[in-house]
Amino acid sequence: MWRQCSPRESIAEERKAPGFPIRELTYWIDGGKKATELKESIMLELERDPLWRVNDNPNLTLAETRERAMKKIRRLADQAMSHPLENTMVRMSIISVVDPGFWTRFGVHFGLFVGALQGQATPAQLAYWMEKGALSMQGITGCFGMTELGHGSNVAGLETTATFDAATDEFVVHSPTLTSTKWWIGGAAHTATHCSVYAQLVVDGRRYGTKTFVVQLRDTKTFELMPGVNIGDLGKKMGRDQIDNGWIRFTYVRIPRSHMLMKHTKVLRSGKVIEPPLAQLAYGALIQGRVSMVSDSANVAKRALTIATRYASVRRQFGDGAIETKLLDYPIHQHRLLPLVAQTFAMIFAAREMTSSYRQLMSELGKLGDATGAKADEAIKNLKETHATSAGLKAFCTWMCLNIIDQCRQSLGGHGYSAYTGLAQAYSDFAVHCTWEGDNTILTLQCGRYLVATALDARKGQPLPANLKYLSRAMAQNGATKTTEPCTGSTAEEVSELRVLEAAWGSVAANAILSAVRAFETGQAKGMSKDNAYEFSSAARLHAARMHSYTYLLQRFVTQVERSPAALRPVLTLLARLFGAHSAVQHSGEFLQSGFYSGSQIEALKTFVNSACTEVRKDAIPLTDAFGYTDYVINSPLGRYDGDVYEKYFDLVTSLNPQKPVPYFDSLIRPLLERTNESELGPELEIDQEE
Amino acid sequence: MWRQCSPRESIAEERKAPGFPIRELTYWIDGGKKATELKESIMLELERDPLWRVNDNPNLTLAETRERAMKKIRRLADQAMSHPLENTMVRMSIISVVDPGFWTRFGVHFGLFVGALQGQATPAQLAYWMEKGALSMQGITGCFGMTELGHGSNVAGLETTATFDAATDEFVVHSPTLTSTKWWIGGAAHTATHCSVYAQLVVDGRRYGTKTFVVQLRDTKTFELMPGVNIGDLGKKMGRDQIDNGWIRFTYVRIPRSHMLMKHTKVLRSGKVIEPPLAQLAYGALIQGRVSMVSDSANVAKRALTIATRYASVRRQFGDGAIETKLLDYPIHQHRLLPLVAQTFAMIFAAREMTSSYRQLMSELGKLGDATGAKADEAIKNLKETHATSAGLKAFCTWMCLNIIDQCRQSLGGHGYSAYTGLAQAYSDFAVHCTWEGDNTILTLQCGRYLVATALDARKGQPLPANLKYLSRAMAQNGATKTTEPCTGSTAEEVSELRVLEAAWGSVAANAILSAVRAFETGQAKGMSKDNAYEFSSAARLHAARMHSYTYLLQRFVTQVERSPAALRPVLTLLARLFGAHSAVQHSGEFLQSGFYSGSQIEALKTFVNSACTEVRKDAIPLTDAFGYTDYVINSPLGRYDGDVYEKYFDLVTSLNPQKPVPYFDSLIRPLLERTNESELGPELEIDQEE
Repeated sequence: MWRQCSPRESIAEERKAPGFPIRELTYWIDGGKKATELKESIMLELERDPLWRVNDNPNLTLAETRERAMKKIRRLADQAMSHPLENTMVRMSIISVVDPGFWTRFGVHFGLFVGALQGQATPAQLAYWMEKGALSMQGITGCFGMTELGHGSNVAGLETTATFDAATDEFVVHSPTLTSTKWWIGGAAHTATHCSVYAQLVVDGRRYGTKTFVVQLRDTKTFELMPGVNIGDLGKKMGRDQIDNGWIRFTYVRIPRSHMLMKHTKVLRSGKVIEPPLAQLAYGALIQGRVSMVSDSANVAKRALTIATRYASVRRQFGDGAIETKLLDYPIHQHRLLPLVAQTFAMIFAAREMTSSYRQLMSELGKLGDATGAKADEAIKNLKETHATSAGLKAFCTWMCLNIIDQCRQSLGGHGYSAYTGLAQAYSDFAVHCTWEGDNTILTLQCGRYLVATALDARKGQPLPANLKYLSRAMAQNGATKTTEPCTGSTAEEVSELRVLEAAWGSVAANAILSAVRAFETGQAKGMSKDNAYEFSSAARLHAARMHSYTYLLQRFVTQVERSPAALRPVLTLLARLFGAHSAVQHSGEFLQSGFYSGSQIEALKTFVNSACTEVRKDAIPLTDAFGYTDYVINSPLGRYDGDVYEKYFDLVTSLNPQKPVPYFDSLIRPLLERTNESELGPELEIDQEE
Repeated sequence: MWRQCSPRESIAEERKAPGFPIRELTYWIDGGKKATELKESIMLELERDPLWRVNDNPNLTLAETRERAMKKIRRLADQAMSHPLENTMVRMSIISVVDPGFWTRFGVHFGLFVGALQGQATPAQLAYWMEKGALSMQGITGCFGMTELGHGSNVAGLETTATFDAATDEFVVHSPTLTSTKWWIGGAAHTATHCSVYAQLVVDGRRYGTKTFVVQLRDTKTFELMPGVNIGDLGKKMGRDQIDNGWIRFTYVRIPRSHMLMKHTKVLRSGKVIEPPLAQLAYGALIQGRVSMVSDSANVAKRALTIATRYASVRRQFGDGAIETKLLDYPIHQHRLLPLVAQTFAMIFAAREMTSSYRQLMSELGKLGDATGAKADEAIKNLKETHATSAGLKAFCTWMCLNIIDQCRQSLGGHGYSAYTGLAQAYSDFAVHCTWEGDNTILTLQCGRYLVATALDARKGQPLPANLKYLSRAMAQNGATKTTEPCTGSTAEEVSELRVLEAAWGSVAANAILSAVRAFETGQAKGMSKDNAYEFSSAARLHAARMHSYTYLLQRFVTQVERSPAALRPVLTLLARLFGAHSAVQHSGEFLQSGFYSGSQIEALKTFVNSACTEVRKDAIPLTDAFGYTDYVINSPLGRYDGDVYEKYFDLVTSLNPQKPVPYFDSLIRPLLERTNESELGPELEIDQEE
């Protein structure tokens, strides 16, 4: 038999000799001491506010869940008005981890509805809606009416119409078919008074494509539905039940002409339609949501890994010592979790760089206004690049995070299946990130299409964007699949140096892109249209986008390592190498085919991954401590800082599920236990004896 | 704008010219016409029974869910008593797809509790418990008390004790610590009167390891807890809320000596302990659960793919024709779904062969009794092999199915996130399969350990088991990593022939096993104990087990293709090749490293996968139709046979969520909308003017 060992002692010993200054890493991750302190003050503020209790969420009914969410909206709207914007941003990023469903409910108004106004209204229109209280939720609560029952990704195919009636200077908004019913509209079922409706603009019988119209849904005094508006509740979902998704049908709903958002396309009183010179600019707003989902992926992964590594440092099972062995001491458990820690750091740094290049781009576009010319062309080019990169990264990081959550959940063994240990719900809540704001597969293909187009442009002499410089060498080879400069090292150390890994990934990504180019060209050579040739190359494009995303993540990781404080550089370098090497081993076929690594170099890479896991294991707890989430945000008894997992898990489960008599004993169980077999034999038949 | 196209017509055209006789494939999958007809009669019986309504499950509270499940227990227990066993088996296999949480609630009694009696009681004990009503749930409802809060996989480490008290001829069952609390015990919270408790047998101060004891939990007349028994409810889980998992603590609970199940280890009146000659035999029973999870994986995957392919054949999005393009016509969508169809067939056939070899083994073991000698040795050897293969396959197939469910769910776009389209809940319900009855990672390692041990035995001259014949050639090479007989073909056709794929997988699996052997030997050479050397080789063992499982699945697939009716052979051959080739492309690094395929052969393999997807696409709907599940079992408006997805989805959502006034408008929303900003400025300070 094994001797018992206290979970608190088990985790305490992990913190005795951290290999790096933990607090400094927290600052580096958060973006500085001030940012960390702001984050900590907001975590404390939420923890102390009874409205923000979350550990009993699993026991609420759908109705209770939604009502509680509504209470919090008031609190947050008040705070958003009276606190600096930065506080609200940090508060929302904590809430996206603690209570993702509520984050969505609040975000639908402030992010999507107000975002649509900001992105698509003229200045006068924006002022009008702000005056009416759109920003502060005074008099107006908004929702975002894009998706329909029959159309999601294909926004151009939406069926709802907004037909201009010149006689009354109004638009008539109408849902002509069942499939045109607006669907998944967050906030529609219970919350919204207004909706930004995406509909086909029709003027004089001609269609001008999908534009945005503000339609009032409910009377703000009575909450009665407006004439012609019909709304229903979509009910239960996989997760995020805090947000009241609904369906909406419009039956000849009249709105003033001025309720069409006219920053880009304009409809004059006469019915004349003025289309914008730069149609693409309207889509800049889509990028923000995608960038924020990269951050969100990093944040949710931080929480999942904090739970998984802490539990692994106190849970003991098997072993040949006097006490059982910690899960974290098993090489296989290290292999399960530690490469995911490296992936999380990669996402943290990619999110940081994406966010800053997005902000820079938006500021450039803002200065540009409606101007045309060389500057505008340049801005459009940057917009396209950021659009494509953010699309690929949104897809790649949300998939990566979803996998991290489930790997962490499975690593908790049976306890991962409890609703009170945090990761089951995290998975259900997070899963929708892979679908909304652009289905991941479609976004990945978009990114792949951009990569193919960029390679084709480069062939015609256009300069390569910074993130795609790795293409130049491969392009110079004119399409030969083999790399010209294979890895020359042979030891585990040599094949896994950061500059080697960068070159390795660059060469593999370049090959993947050129292979997608070839597939596209094969399609064209067969006489396909451009679109069909892209379709024909879709598997290759998807693959190219995936390889490019790995490369992008590794590049950003390396940049951040170089910029990091000296005291952090060793551990961050180790993590960057683990990220690059582990991902390469997972895709060893690509590296062997490109000739960058040989079979024995791949073996050396595997040896490095093993030894890197052993190294990272020593600091596994300090590293996840450095993520800097309090127990309130972790919200899992298995992920407590103090390691006191069993006591607190037992306490939580028993306090939320107090002992009570079985409610259906008399009605169902007693009759079952006390029943006797009712004979199934009928009367004996005398006729049988006559035979 | 695109012209509309009726979903019904869209799916109808898929059935116009099936490439094989659908009905015949259904018979082949089910195991014959009679089996199909029995399955169909049971699907109809369930569909017509109002108790078995399942499409409103998402809207039930936890309490309602459990109460409804209890009602069904009575129905099923009565049927189990009055119908042939085969009907019950088929009924349970349908229920495991339609209502997995209920399947568990019922299975805890009939599978686990009664299974423990059958596997571990002496004949007299078994007769005693049957007499008391254990089989028919008359007077007894059972649960299975193995897992503890602090111990899952390590059954030998369980802390609950059963101490023999010679004075009273009783055992004293006791939970000495918090972590010894029995945890996850299905049926404990609400249902069970008795429990088969796994506890450390202690006699005269000496421990004899974990044995099984029947302990009464509740008075069968009043349902009051028995003295010393304390039980609580584990509340909400990720899924399977139909089953009432609970925790149990025993405080010096006395049971008669005869309540220890003594088929294997016996404790005499004197306190003398007689241990069994073949300790391993006690574990034979574990295999059954694992084999059944392979079947379950296949069945759940059938349902998920039926939903995904049917929806993909009616959902249209984008496209350059007059009507939008079906999702199923996009190459990338074919790549997402059709290799999963091939995987599902692989699991169907593996489940069939596993089940039959398990049955054969059990019948051999049954005949053997307590005998020893050559025959017993042979049986033990078979038992070990089946144990290892079933362990690896349980892990591999449950992971594969979980991935299939989520891929299918994501392929539904946003609608996959609704609770009413079937796959969100399927994922949550299925996920626990990866953890219970042996955590997948641990099972995979067990399988890997067996593979290493078998290779080492073979080196000493022991014959290789049939499933591992592929090792012989690689062993003859004495550990060289390169295959001696690389693929000689070059075209897509040649590199993907079934016999080539079989050889390819055999060579890769053999390499993986030998590489695990080398890792194990490296550990030993470093002076590690046998167990530590196995730990040291764990990543390699895990990989070996994975490669072996692919090979096993492909081998079984090939066998079944060979035995299949001529009319089915072409389509099954295509699917087997798609399975083998797609899996090889996913692991191309292994094949390149082994030298079986060159880089250009891998490219040829990719070309084959593309063309195979195009081929399989033509029969995608007939293939999933052949799985033969009725709309009732499919239980998703998006997976309806008639393709009428939008109407029925809308109807279901609106009927389950009728329109009602927003419940908290007056209390929460109106005050939000009508609030005015409360000034945050204090009084103006005259002292400021004094500065």
